[in-house]
Amino acid sequence: MPYRAPADEYQFLFDHVVGLDKVTATDRFEEATADVASAILEEAAKMSNEVLAPLNRAGDLHPAKLENGVVRTSPGFGDGYKAIAEGGWIGMAASPEYGGMGLPYSLQNAVNEMMGGACLSLQLNPLMTQGQIEALEHHASDAIKDLYLPKLISGEWCGTMNLTEPQAGSDVGALKSKAEDNGDGTYAITGQKIYISWGDNDFSENVCHLVLARLPDAVPGTKGISLFMVPKLIPDENGVPGVANSLKVVSLEHKLGLHGSPTAVMQYDGATGWMIGKPNGGMAAMFTMMNNARVGVGGQGIAVAEAAYQHALAYATDRKQGRAAQGDTILGHADVRRMLAQMKADVFAARAIAASCAAAIDMQTATGGAEWTARAALLTPIAKAFGTDVGIEVSQQGIQVHGGMGFVEETGAAQFLRDVRVTAIYEGTNGIQAMDLVARKMMDGGEAAYALIDEIEAYAEECKGTMPDLAGPVFTAAETLRETTEWLVEQELNDRFAGAVPYLRLFARVLGGYYHLCAANAAGADSARARLAQVYVQRILPEHGGLADHVRQGAQDLYALTDEDLAA
Amino acid sequence: MPYRAPADEYQFLFDHVVGLDKVTATDRFEEATADVASAILEEAAKMSNEVLAPLNRAGDLHPAKLENGVVRTSPGFGDGYKAIAEGGWIGMAASPEYGGMGLPYSLQNAVNEMMGGACLSLQLNPLMTQGQIEALEHHASDAIKDLYLPKLISGEWCGTMNLTEPQAGSDVGALKSKAEDNGDGTYAITGQKIYISWGDNDFSENVCHLVLARLPDAVPGTKGISLFMVPKLIPDENGVPGVANSLKVVSLEHKLGLHGSPTAVMQYDGATGWMIGKPNGGMAAMFTMMNNARVGVGGQGIAVAEAAYQHALAYATDRKQGRAAQGDTILGHADVRRMLAQMKADVFAARAIAASCAAAIDMQTATGGAEWTARAALLTPIAKAFGTDVGIEVSQQGIQVHGGMGFVEETGAAQFLRDVRVTAIYEGTNGIQAMDLVARKMMDGGEAAYALIDEIEAYAEECKGTMPDLAGPVFTAAETLRETTEWLVEQELNDRFAGAVPYLRLFARVLGGYYHLCAANAAGADSARARLAQVYVQRILPEHGGLADHVRQGAQDLYALTDEDLAA
Repeated sequence: MPYRAPADEYQFLFDHVVGLDKVTATDRFEEATADVASAILEEAAKMSNEVLAPLNRAGDLHPAKLENGVVRTSPGFGDGYKAIAEGGWIGMAASPEYGGMGLPYSLQNAVNEMMGGACLSLQLNPLMTQGQIEALEHHASDAIKDLYLPKLISGEWCGTMNLTEPQAGSDVGALKSKAEDNGDGTYAITGQKIYISWGDNDFSENVCHLVLARLPDAVPGTKGISLFMVPKLIPDENGVPGVANSLKVVSLEHKLGLHGSPTAVMQYDGATGWMIGKPNGGMAAMFTMMNNARVGVGGQGIAVAEAAYQHALAYATDRKQGRAAQGDTILGHADVRRMLAQMKADVFAARAIAASCAAAIDMQTATGGAEWTARAALLTPIAKAFGTDVGIEVSQQGIQVHGGMGFVEETGAAQFLRDVRVTAIYEGTNGIQAMDLVARKMMDGGEAAYALIDEIEAYAEECKGTMPDLAGPVFTAAETLRETTEWLVEQELNDRFAGAVPYLRLFARVLGGYYHLCAANAAGADSARARLAQVYVQRILPEHGGLADHVRQGAQDLYALTDEDLAA
Repeated sequence: MPYRAPADEYQFLFDHVVGLDKVTATDRFEEATADVASAILEEAAKMSNEVLAPLNRAGDLHPAKLENGVVRTSPGFGDGYKAIAEGGWIGMAASPEYGGMGLPYSLQNAVNEMMGGACLSLQLNPLMTQGQIEALEHHASDAIKDLYLPKLISGEWCGTMNLTEPQAGSDVGALKSKAEDNGDGTYAITGQKIYISWGDNDFSENVCHLVLARLPDAVPGTKGISLFMVPKLIPDENGVPGVANSLKVVSLEHKLGLHGSPTAVMQYDGATGWMIGKPNGGMAAMFTMMNNARVGVGGQGIAVAEAAYQHALAYATDRKQGRAAQGDTILGHADVRRMLAQMKADVFAARAIAASCAAAIDMQTATGGAEWTARAALLTPIAKAFGTDVGIEVSQQGIQVHGGMGFVEETGAAQFLRDVRVTAIYEGTNGIQAMDLVARKMMDGGEAAYALIDEIEAYAEECKGTMPDLAGPVFTAAETLRETTEWLVEQELNDRFAGAVPYLRLFARVLGGYYHLCAANAAGADSARARLAQVYVQRILPEHGGLADHVRQGAQDLYALTDEDLAA
């Protein structure tokens, strides 16, 4: 059951749902013509299908290992990485000044999903590097940019993010790693970092760690954090890696999934680092890196959902059971069909949300327009949390479609669930995403949300004549979202937090309806798109009512229930 | 974070929710006094906590292995099994005539959950034996009963169920194993069976396989299936195991979870078997075995949900993050608290449904009353599917509460998900359960469902004065369930199937509300029970509206969406 990267889906989304033409109409992205975009989708799909997909199982069965302090990656991963690097897929959105292609993030996002569906654990590596490239582009000195960016963009070197410490996870401000001024423009970094994805490898010439640490006089909390570039091998001025830095991989985690991706505990013992951005300005730089990484992780969820869907569909198309005497497969059974239809409908919804977010990011980049900045900021936590939730849910359903075979590892259905599970946790748990949505992203009083809801309602209104069965429920759901948002922005923060997760899902449900409606409208009433939209609107969208009720509870009942009650 | 078996919860359910007193008021169960029940809960909890729980991780890390045709079980499992057998926990509901305790199934069900929460993979072994005991009690000849029952009840021998073949999973009628009359009262059984839980072990004196096979002249489908007892070692008339039968374990599956439970491919090559029940009457006997096994598997889901909840709560109570300077743990964070509150509320709901089903089974046994038979039949698929769905969902949330630690295997949170995942699949997938509910269990035109809905509404009506915030929404939800049921029973079968899964969940949601109301009412408005009920009714019960909408779609849209559409 070979993986088939969804290039056609992205082509459709670009052409008919998220309107990539408005992105490529800008000066900034004028070179990303329709032909270029198509060629990129096609090439990346081919590489994903032919080179990366065959590595997925090997990564699971033969995890990365730490041997005498050296990380040994899974069989074939070195060659897979080389193919990614040589294809230019790492730095495709990076600045041409340093060897990048300067393409829209929309395309990068599409390519990332295709690579992730093929082999998530390997794809995580360039995803980390891309985040680092972006952080350096925005915050590093010219000297650092000149030295590091060409190597990261070409893939000769890889990048990592070092935030988490044992006592500082979601609460980044609690981190303790120290940075002491060496007096020569460098800093001595000391501390332990955990959950470092791709903390080391045996296929890149160097590994560049971006590490959050505190200067000696820093204030407590997030305002006292600075960011440092700490390379594994210290490069000379020509970019030739030299002496080994004072850092090491202490151990690799034994994880539920993503076995091909080495998750390291890193130890820094006075390692030499260069400050990125301003003293105590580390969080700003890190947020640059993390924001798009969040969309990227949402894309990982969608990637696995797509792969799990294809896998389950292939099984259902082949598996005879029940009315087998008539040659029927389980695809003919209503309940199996329901599962597959819902899986496909949700993959579309999640992907459209992510693509829409990516397009907003591009418009922000190209125009600097405040409305695009707000739109991108609003959609980012939704794209991340909903994409990864869909990844988990679709993988779960994929196992269920397989019946007993789903529980047997050889089938491959279980690996999707094991691999994707972490995506709801890393880059900020989905709870953190939801809190970001109801707090930071509502500091405008809901303005960005209302602008999007207005857009949805106006579009649904337009379609009411031609597609009443779809447009009507979408409009109604959008109204519920508006009323719920109006209620939400009036509440204290903790009352918002108590309903943050269902609010985010409510928002995603409405967005999913909107994009399904766009797709159906573009493809026509008698199209596969319209039929899939019908499934979404009839079976899935009704979830929104219960979610809205949930949101409106506030926090009171959660605290009325005492700690003792919970432990009783 | 040691497991603490929920003996108190069962005591409360027995006393205040499912009314065990009506069971023990019958002649059949008069010996199961309140004191006896309490003592059993306490003893079983102690054994589960102290003997079984310490084995859970070992079973995961050191899976059962097949070595030279012999199954080697996980470290400590032999001793754990011995403790279960010697405690009398295997045959506690079995007939005293053969060494059982003749206790209500309600108690058996409670003990099974407690053992399952401690170590699911080991608990699955006696669960299988219990099903076999019941099948033999109802369908076997006296000679077979005399020979096998005392050994199975004492635990000297273990029992298995052999239904599935590679081409015959949910469609049992497609099985091909043959049974040829040897002319001496025995049959020669030939065929391959897959997914045989605990197909062999190294701690019981014998393993007794109940095998479905076809006589040479049998008609196709389920009406041509007979059931046979096929022991691993053929016992002499005194019950001493002798010569090895012509059967073997071909291989063990490499599974997502439940590593401590050997899942075997079994090969029978003219193995000697004894028919159980009538020729071609195998399905009836198998259903006896499977029906209660379904409740038992539902209990496995609840068991893991309870364990995962306790594990997550302990983590949240201990983990400092965020406002850590004030000594706060993440238990104080609204979103974490929401997750834990929902987990606890759903564990209660699922457990109450299962306990209610068990009580109905007991009343059926004790009184033979048609209303109890119908009630038990109606609740069985709900108890199975909802219990296991809750097992998966709560395990998922448990991982999420742990953040990054949830993805690291050492934490143990991931094992719960891996272990419980199969419970939604085996003993009939949850889709099959839902189809059973909307088809077979509605052959009465909805009578059994309406009787239960009447009971719920009458109770909610009673409570409206004292607990309006709880009783009102429960009444409303029950009305929605009634209307949805009225719609459902008028539909063609395939239109029912298309909404079967959401219908089952809708039913479970309403039942959960009912039992939470019972608990709150019993404990009083100012009680932990009432506060938990509030969370359920406000945050979870609203899900019912969307589910009802989903049910009413029928199958049309699923088939309008063509196979090509799904593959597009």
